[in-house]
Amino acid sequence: MRFDGRGAESLREVKITRNYLKHAEGSVLIEFGDTKVICTASVEGSVPPFLRGKGTGWVTAEYSMLPRATHTRSHRESSKGKVGGRTHEIQRLIGRSLRAVMDMNLLGERSVLIDCDVIQADGGTRTASITGAYVALYDALDGLVKKGELAAMPLKEAVAAVSVGIVDGTPLLDLNYVEDSSAEVDMNFVMTSSNRFVEVQGTAEAEPFTVEQMDAMRDLAISGIKRLFQIQKEALCQ
Amino acid sequence: MRFDGRGAESLREVKITRNYLKHAEGSVLIEFGDTKVICTASVEGSVPPFLRGKGTGWVTAEYSMLPRATHTRSHRESSKGKVGGRTHEIQRLIGRSLRAVMDMNLLGERSVLIDCDVIQADGGTRTASITGAYVALYDALDGLVKKGELAAMPLKEAVAAVSVGIVDGTPLLDLNYVEDSSAEVDMNFVMTSSNRFVEVQGTAEAEPFTVEQMDAMRDLAISGIKRLFQIQKEALCQ
Amino acid sequence: MRFDGRGAESLREVKITRNYLKHAEGSVLIEFGDTKVICTASVEGSVPPFLRGKGTGWVTAEYSMLPRATHTRSHRESSKGKVGGRTHEIQRLIGRSLRAVMDMNLLGERSVLIDCDVIQADGGTRTASITGAYVALYDALDGLVKKGELAAMPLKEAVAAVSVGIVDGTPLLDLNYVEDSSAEVDMNFVMTSSNRFVEVQGTAEAEPFTVEQMDAMRDLAISGIKRLFQIQKEALCQ
Amino acid sequence: MRFDGRGAESLREVKITRNYLKHAEGSVLIEFGDTKVICTASVEGSVPPFLRGKGTGWVTAEYSMLPRATHTRSHRESSKGKVGGRTHEIQRLIGRSLRAVMDMNLLGERSVLIDCDVIQADGGTRTASITGAYVALYDALDGLVKKGELAAMPLKEAVAAVSVGIVDGTPLLDLNYVEDSSAEVDMNFVMTSSNRFVEVQGTAEAEPFTVEQMDAMRDLAISGIKRLFQIQKEALCQ
Amino acid sequence: MRFDGRGAESLREVKITRNYLKHAEGSVLIEFGDTKVICTASVEGSVPPFLRGKGTGWVTAEYSMLPRATHTRSHRESSKGKVGGRTHEIQRLIGRSLRAVMDMNLLGERSVLIDCDVIQADGGTRTASITGAYVALYDALDGLVKKGELAAMPLKEAVAAVSVGIVDGTPLLDLNYVEDSSAEVDMNFVMTSSNRFVEVQGTAEAEPFTVEQMDAMRDLAISGIKRLFQIQKEALCQ
Amino acid sequence: MRFDGRGAESLREVKITRNYLKHAEGSVLIEFGDTKVICTASVEGSVPPFLRGKGTGWVTAEYSMLPRATHTRSHRESSKGKVGGRTHEIQRLIGRSLRAVMDMNLLGERSVLIDCDVIQADGGTRTASITGAYVALYDALDGLVKKGELAAMPLKEAVAAVSVGIVDGTPLLDLNYVEDSSAEVDMNFVMTSSNRFVEVQGTAEAEPFTVEQMDAMRDLAISGIKRLFQIQKEALCQ
Repeated sequence: MRFDGRGAESLREVKITRNYLKHAEGSVLIEFGDTKVICTASVEGSVPPFLRGKGTGWVTAEYSMLPRATHTRSHRESSKGKVGGRTHEIQRLIGRSLRAVMDMNLLGERSVLIDCDVIQADGGTRTASITGAYVALYDALDGLVKKGELAAMPLKEAVAAVSVGIVDGTPLLDLNYVEDSSAEVDMNFVMTSSNRFVEVQGTAEAEPFTVEQMDAMRDLAISGIKRLFQIQKEALCQ
Repeated sequence: MRFDGRGAESLREVKITRNYLKHAEGSVLIEFGDTKVICTASVEGSVPPFLRGKGTGWVTAEYSMLPRATHTRSHRESSKGKVGGRTHEIQRLIGRSLRAVMDMNLLGERSVLIDCDVIQADGGTRTASITGAYVALYDALDGLVKKGELAAMPLKEAVAAVSVGIVDGTPLLDLNYVEDSSAEVDMNFVMTSSNRFVEVQGTAEAEPFTVEQMDAMRDLAISGIKRLFQIQKEALCQ
Repeated sequence: MRFDGRGAESLREVKITRNYLKHAEGSVLIEFGDTKVICTASVEGSVPPFLRGKGTGWVTAEYSMLPRATHTRSHRESSKGKVGGRTHEIQRLIGRSLRAVMDMNLLGERSVLIDCDVIQADGGTRTASITGAYVALYDALDGLVKKGELAAMPLKEAVAAVSVGIVDGTPLLDLNYVEDSSAEVDMNFVMTSSNRFVEVQGTAEAEPFTVEQMDAMRDLAISGIKRLFQIQKEALCQ
Repeated sequence: MRFDGRGAESLREVKITRNYLKHAEGSVLIEFGDTKVICTASVEGSVPPFLRGKGTGWVTAEYSMLPRATHTRSHRESSKGKVGGRTHEIQRLIGRSLRAVMDMNLLGERSVLIDCDVIQADGGTRTASITGAYVALYDALDGLVKKGELAAMPLKEAVAAVSVGIVDGTPLLDLNYVEDSSAEVDMNFVMTSSNRFVEVQGTAEAEPFTVEQMDAMRDLAISGIKRLFQIQKEALCQ
Repeated sequence: MRFDGRGAESLREVKITRNYLKHAEGSVLIEFGDTKVICTASVEGSVPPFLRGKGTGWVTAEYSMLPRATHTRSHRESSKGKVGGRTHEIQRLIGRSLRAVMDMNLLGERSVLIDCDVIQADGGTRTASITGAYVALYDALDGLVKKGELAAMPLKEAVAAVSVGIVDGTPLLDLNYVEDSSAEVDMNFVMTSSNRFVEVQGTAEAEPFTVEQMDAMRDLAISGIKRLFQIQKEALCQ
Repeated sequence: MRFDGRGAESLREVKITRNYLKHAEGSVLIEFGDTKVICTASVEGSVPPFLRGKGTGWVTAEYSMLPRATHTRSHRESSKGKVGGRTHEIQRLIGRSLRAVMDMNLLGERSVLIDCDVIQADGGTRTASITGAYVALYDALDGLVKKGELAAMPLKEAVAAVSVGIVDGTPLLDLNYVEDSSAEVDMNFVMTSSNRFVEVQGTAEAEPFTVEQMDAMRDLAISGIKRLFQIQKEALCQ
């Protein structure tokens, strides 16, 4: 039994609110328990220089936290004048995860810019960002299809992500901040709805982990992400 | 009759949601129509170097917009590596406005950092920020009083702000984005609940303005800010 | 009677030296007592990207202080690697003030870059900058007219600025540094020669101010700026 | 049979040259085929602020490429004025990998700064960096033990890393640049000499991957890293 | 006969105006013909970290040009966010030149910060800066001696500088901008009043130069700098 | 007799290893005793904006040190976010030295980017960089001639550089770090194979120097650089 009453293999309550902001082509508030992230998808009519003239599109992501999303206030990266290593790592992960399910030829010479802004953090912000950003991206692309700007939906399948960890020797699904702080191992899995992996990242925070532990965490993640695909689908049907 | 049905001297619907985020000592979501700003107040136990050892406190503010708060996506200042002129101007204004109603001796050697993050912009973000930040600041300081860390509330009176403009020759209260874009003159007033001014900023966007026009705008602002003090008070009574 | 013998409604001695530097199209040394600012106007044959192809021009300004313009040496913004908030605020103010009296269509697709470099500071550097920059701008544009590059002078009227403050309860015109440091309220007025306002900025440094105080400061400013228009006119007639 | 004649499960020729530079406490040139990285370990007598006074040490890493380590010259990050996302990601990975095998209490309040500078790149620079940095770190710490500054060697076990990928559907060990460019999946494994994982990072470059493919890559990595431990041991015995 | 009527071995008219600004401990306007530089010396009561506790002082310099000191306006380094290579080179040269004639033990743990701001450029700005900065430094230190803060003047001798070049095969003293632009060789000499060299910098702009040419330029420089020492001495006697 | 057994007029052992890296068009490892610098020459098909359309080429240089090239580790300039003054000074010197022996018309609209990366520093890194960069540049240009992209070799003659100093009153050729640290005067000479000077830079570190001392240093440098031309020629003949 976990601190918040969940079993080891349970997700926190996950809520997806679509059309959260009025200006963006796609916008979602996603909540994993107390973790809350605003994900927006902005469509632009051009691509980065390395893709120009190739008839193919691009999806990229930026990630940030409000200064007081966390227990103690953190400095703004705009004030520090540079984007930190952790932020770089996360926004590159989000971008790669979404590109993996895109058919860039169907998108044509357009970019979709994903913004994931954490307004409240309680563990698992990067995996919540990916899961929510997929829905925002879907809405933005669906809008283009409906307006006739795209002939077909460029998304090949769904993508979602979850964190798993080992706390006191026990593998747990979807760690909150308290659990994450005391985890011996922390793994993030990004999967597509055809049950294949896009990204796997495991880090031994305190103690290296064995093949058997990696397999146990992988099993937890697979079952958790299947549940996330259902939640995404329900949100998109409303 | 205005675009959205308001009269010239009407505010948009203003909503203040307290305790919006769980980690901050004070946190508010303030809405002026479609303008939505998250205001947080974070208490820190130290002051900037120029105040150390003087037994007096400090209040400072930072302001930012989510990239997709606006019609077209704007670049993050963290990615550009520097804070722009408009941001500087606004966060200095918010800080001065709040300091004007503080008794810094009662605060002691503590800082309160105000963060105003615009999640959706439709005109008047700086005046909404000041009006909401006052409530977040109140909650943060009230918490210190209740915990016995402060002997008395260091706020001397309330502070709120509103924008006024001249559109097609007519003075209008609380401009939204469409009105603001076509205004000949734009003025921001920051007042305290004793009916005195903390900041007055008027800018001729298209045409210089006369003493009579300034007086008309000032009258509109005074009546609008009085209504804002009521709204703040109601929010704080809940 | 003020520290330097002036009455409450007197300007300091104001001197304008035209053609101060040999390379700039317009260049002025303006002195308000011990405040000395070099203002130059540089004409360039292009406009910023957002104006290209519209047949209209642009005026923009930059402001800086020599490190030892002040009592204690201040760090160079070039060494710090970024332009501070105060500098941003002032250079935006100067740019807006000058644009307000320009007919940008008459200017055509040209930019005028105003540089205001304070070589000695004794209060009122931003208002001295605006007042002097107008003369430098006039000279630069007049040169284009005389060379036949412009069909008509694009300046619609003159612009000048002055600071006013309340010190020990008394409204004073054109504060020097000592007065400014102890002022309860500080207001800057930018007006055109048709007696209309371009910018009004008032800040309560110590105590909020009343409608009556604002009106008293406004009256002082109007009379002071009228005198500045005479001084500008005399300088331009030499 | 691979492009360079290797079998799917073969490493490139790996060479470790110790004491490569004369000033560093530990320094190694490591070569994985044509990939060449200089790894140095520098001992400093202090720790970062968050660790001060705790009696415990720290290991951190920086990674860089010479501009012409690559086929086409890349810009220096010092000229661009910021460290890119890929560099951040890699240097954080190297630091975490080495810290995982350290007993920080035995190190005491000292820092070891690892520098990995790629002088020639042909794929696998991050895994070569980790493998070589371990040897440089060993030498630096061994020097402290021999000088009597440390009572015992703070390294608990060895750490090494290798990349694996799927190219044309076949899992291959230790990809060179040509193979890496056409890989469908790219995984990096960091393991300790007790056969446990410190870091696992898998990315689908072109096509998501299955559980079975992940297992096949993991098996290749485990056998490759075992061979790297032998090579490290041989180098340290010379 | 040169463009401006001078002979090959003549300086331009050199003027030194002391006490040019009211706040700095030493301040000079130096003019070499149309080249005009404001040099200030600011005394601070501390030294850089590498000198703390050694009882010895420091002199350092910063150099900048007003944007419109030049024919076409140059960008501010503060706006670009970094100090350029040429600026770095010049300010390091000025600092080294002045330190060469200082007795840092007599100065004690104090710093003197030299600022050289070019308000109008017509060639030779770095040599004018050194020549003027010496006088500003003298005045600042003399003030400390007169106030009894220093027991003795820490300047061991005078320092001055001049440029020499080869134009159309002829060695010329003190090049102005037009001459400098077409010079085949450009040399700067910094000398002390004991006829010794502090800095010698020669650069072949178009064609390498011979030993004989270097000697001819050196002779011109020695005679020119002797004249500069007279001018400095006359300025200091007024 | 010097510390390392050399006579006053002797170079350290100089070794030039060509084709040191596989990707660059020209690449050299140059060693002056324990000073080791990797010099590469990268050919690009474009020129900087100020040269476009003129049919003429460009050569520019960047210089850096590995953090642990030195006795104590130095911070990376990429982490500090800016290139320091010393680096700027050196890379500008290297660029000017190489451009002095180029026929830019023969090069056509191409750039050659020289990178000098010091992997181990023991004095004289800038002069070793110039001497090695010439060979890398030669190889890169020779490759273009052999591929028929250039009609003729654009190098007019060879260029090399050496440092000279006065230590304990004695002029010494090619100072190592220990000698450099205690030198009273430090001069760097860059010469072409026609015995003419491209750059001369002398700095009094402790004591100004006389005409006679300058002449003695110049004689040492001329003889040392003649020997360097032989070493370059031998390297290019292998």
